[in-house]
Amino acid sequence: MFQKITPRSQDYSEWYTEVIRGAELADYAPVRGCMVIRPYGYELWENVKAGLDRRFKETGHENAYFPLFVPMSFIEKEAEHVEGFAPELAVVTHGGGKELEDPLVVRPTSETVIGHMYSQWIQSYRDLPVLINQWANVVRWELRTRLFLRTMEFLWQEGHTAHATVEEAQEETLRMLDVYTDFAVNDAAIPVIPGRKSESEKFPGADASYSIEAMMGDGRALQSGTSHNLGQNFSKAFEIQYQDENSELQYCWTTSWGVSTRMVGAIIMTHGDDQGLVLPPQLAPIQVVIIPIWKKNRDDEKRAVMEAVARMTAEIGEDARVKVDDRDGYSPGWKFNEWELKGVPLRIEIGPRDVEKGEAILARRDRPGKEGKSSIPLAGISEAVSDSLTAIQSALLERATNFRDENTSDEADYDQLKAAVATGFARAWWCGNPSCEDQVKADTQATTRCMPLDQPGGGGTCIVCSESAEEIAVFARAY
Amino acid sequence: MFQKITPRSQDYSEWYTEVIRGAELADYAPVRGCMVIRPYGYELWENVKAGLDRRFKETGHENAYFPLFVPMSFIEKEAEHVEGFAPELAVVTHGGGKELEDPLVVRPTSETVIGHMYSQWIQSYRDLPVLINQWANVVRWELRTRLFLRTMEFLWQEGHTAHATVEEAQEETLRMLDVYTDFAVNDAAIPVIPGRKSESEKFPGADASYSIEAMMGDGRALQSGTSHNLGQNFSKAFEIQYQDENSELQYCWTTSWGVSTRMVGAIIMTHGDDQGLVLPPQLAPIQVVIIPIWKKNRDDEKRAVMEAVARMTAEIGEDARVKVDDRDGYSPGWKFNEWELKGVPLRIEIGPRDVEKGEAILARRDRPGKEGKSSIPLAGISEAVSDSLTAIQSALLERATNFRDENTSDEADYDQLKAAVATGFARAWWCGNPSCEDQVKADTQATTRCMPLDQPGGGGTCIVCSESAEEIAVFARAY
Repeated sequence: MFQKITPRSQDYSEWYTEVIRGAELADYAPVRGCMVIRPYGYELWENVKAGLDRRFKETGHENAYFPLFVPMSFIEKEAEHVEGFAPELAVVTHGGGKELEDPLVVRPTSETVIGHMYSQWIQSYRDLPVLINQWANVVRWELRTRLFLRTMEFLWQEGHTAHATVEEAQEETLRMLDVYTDFAVNDAAIPVIPGRKSESEKFPGADASYSIEAMMGDGRALQSGTSHNLGQNFSKAFEIQYQDENSELQYCWTTSWGVSTRMVGAIIMTHGDDQGLVLPPQLAPIQVVIIPIWKKNRDDEKRAVMEAVARMTAEIGEDARVKVDDRDGYSPGWKFNEWELKGVPLRIEIGPRDVEKGEAILARRDRPGKEGKSSIPLAGISEAVSDSLTAIQSALLERATNFRDENTSDEADYDQLKAAVATGFARAWWCGNPSCEDQVKADTQATTRCMPLDQPGGGGTCIVCSESAEEIAVFARAY
Repeated sequence: MFQKITPRSQDYSEWYTEVIRGAELADYAPVRGCMVIRPYGYELWENVKAGLDRRFKETGHENAYFPLFVPMSFIEKEAEHVEGFAPELAVVTHGGGKELEDPLVVRPTSETVIGHMYSQWIQSYRDLPVLINQWANVVRWELRTRLFLRTMEFLWQEGHTAHATVEEAQEETLRMLDVYTDFAVNDAAIPVIPGRKSESEKFPGADASYSIEAMMGDGRALQSGTSHNLGQNFSKAFEIQYQDENSELQYCWTTSWGVSTRMVGAIIMTHGDDQGLVLPPQLAPIQVVIIPIWKKNRDDEKRAVMEAVARMTAEIGEDARVKVDDRDGYSPGWKFNEWELKGVPLRIEIGPRDVEKGEAILARRDRPGKEGKSSIPLAGISEAVSDSLTAIQSALLERATNFRDENTSDEADYDQLKAAVATGFARAWWCGNPSCEDQVKADTQATTRCMPLDQPGGGGTCIVCSESAEEIAVFARAY
């Protein structure tokens, strides 16, 4: 049901939750911290999945499925890993009415159990690389949850690969970061910053972690995908070894990388406005909604309009995901509001006068009011719709890029940095010392989001301690 | 790696496990009773999913996702449901390092939590029907497990629908049974028997359960999909109510229906032979494997053959899923065996002589030896391949139907029935009394699999007690 939502400027967090519930993307589950993904939200996720899965397959990866339950002893095999995940574990202690001798962990991530299987599957250099992805649910015990962004259970994909050399593993790590960037920019219209995480922000058990960082509508950062070079940490913990061409036993080099339902949160907060969701056409479950209009009790009008709608729908439906909203008992204005809340990129309005003139009104979701409306001839409407969808996809990316750039600044002075991270991203030289990072966090709640792959080169002085620094970091408050 | 597998006649169960592991469909996980689905097996499952998902959407269903964890109190709300599932539950008692006040059940099925959500989403008759499906993992504590057939965790889809009337719910229950039958027959080439389950075999909490029953290569039955009319049992337990057109509050009528990774087991045991898997083309991850042949150190031969293979692959690849096995270091014979074990429906062999003659050899997996081989011209090979795949799909269904019919008999005498169920299905009149069912089970290990929808009509006398009977039941030993 449509409801007026809180403006973003008034309460961004309330706006976010109201949009999700109003657009029927998701709902709270009876178990605290868990989420129900409703059909409209799930279809959006299915489109995210399809866009990623296609790219994984194009880069040589296969899907598989590994078990939900992991022996507790596995988690304990890699020292940093257990330290990072122990506080977040859900533990099964009873099964089939009996207490278990060995408690089982509900997977928070699958490096350990997949590492165990790889140690059995990989014998020779001929078996490498192993390039496997899985689509699965994972559980991390969270107390402060928020729909899509942080839930106790979430859906994601986790890629796990094994390689013969450190170079190949690093190449894979960056390749998948690039795949994520490509998806975010071209499908989700989110201008992400790919970069390396700091030591304190990296994945427990990784040699190096990389992420794509996006700016939300309130200027905060959302880590929207990660790719980890795990070095030989897991291969040593799980004995993932291969015989090289000289018949010598070597440890593999492994990687892992993941994108989750969090991406849906990124889409909502990158593009949404005070009317609700704004979905990029590439991922929208419904790309075009057609609203036929006629006067009450005028069956002649209804007949003429619905005939035109049927022809139009058949034509447009060949290239686009289209829905006709011909429900009785709701006014056109009510329907406009509802589909705006649901973020459908393009609306077509058609009444008896339009039919007579052989026209329809096209309204773009990304441009509210008159500015986004145009009259188009019914002949060749499918092409006009395709062109508009393409234009909207580009416009969303452009708008988000401009917004990010307007809210990102280069800082040379610590006071400026403190002010900048209150509303956006701050780029500054950082020496790499965790104590400087801690200081920024204590002063501003902002953290280093990443060291962008795209660096200016040369060197500078750390924004905090003034020691020499080799890299620029992006500082921001993060979800 | 290829290995000689145990013949079915020697040890069917050993054959089954060896085929799965040899063809790299799945593997045992470190947690007892759990399974790892390897890429080749997962791609087969993805094709099963796609075939079902398409049919669900065509019949008006949408996908959604509900949480993994269910409060223990939910399971207890429906009396038969808790009785049926309590012995099989996995229970999370600890989360985030603390003992939980309310233990959480890992879903064995989702009627309860979905019922809870429906009670919130459904208000009016205008909200009905609700037609939702979810693809998910579920957990049932099993001690005697077997890959794909019975594992502690398995993947499935579970449809959950809510309706205004008992008639609509019954119609939906049978519609989905029909969807399953259509998928089994036309995609999996498995001639299933759709029918109603007996009282003792029905789903805990259902008014009536229906299933599709398939005959495996050893004459046993495998329940391969179920559809339940849940009456108002769950709507009363979870207060799923709607206001009807007269503004009176009514309880909904609900259904649920599911197919799981068990379907992969059905495919293996319906079509497999002593050389390994035989996959129906419709679902096979690889439909055509091309094996180029040349003499060692004859680069001229290799070049000519690989040129022909490249052209052929481009052409065939437009209509079929094709793979070229040009690995060095493996003989053609070794490759033939491996792809036979993996059940690829069609193999193309091509050597330098074939190239000269403008031909290739087509070998059908379903007809071993010379009988299944034919020479075909390279010109128009794509059409020959398409025709062969269609022919194989039909031949598999025909062979499985013949096998089932040859091993199914109509029994009028209890001693005959006892003999018949040792090797196949026995059809016989049954009075419906559970004590007669129990007697058959005690004497033969066979159970009633279903009362086929297709009944002869009229009546007869019960095969066990000779009382009057209104229906024919299918008796068989089951997996």
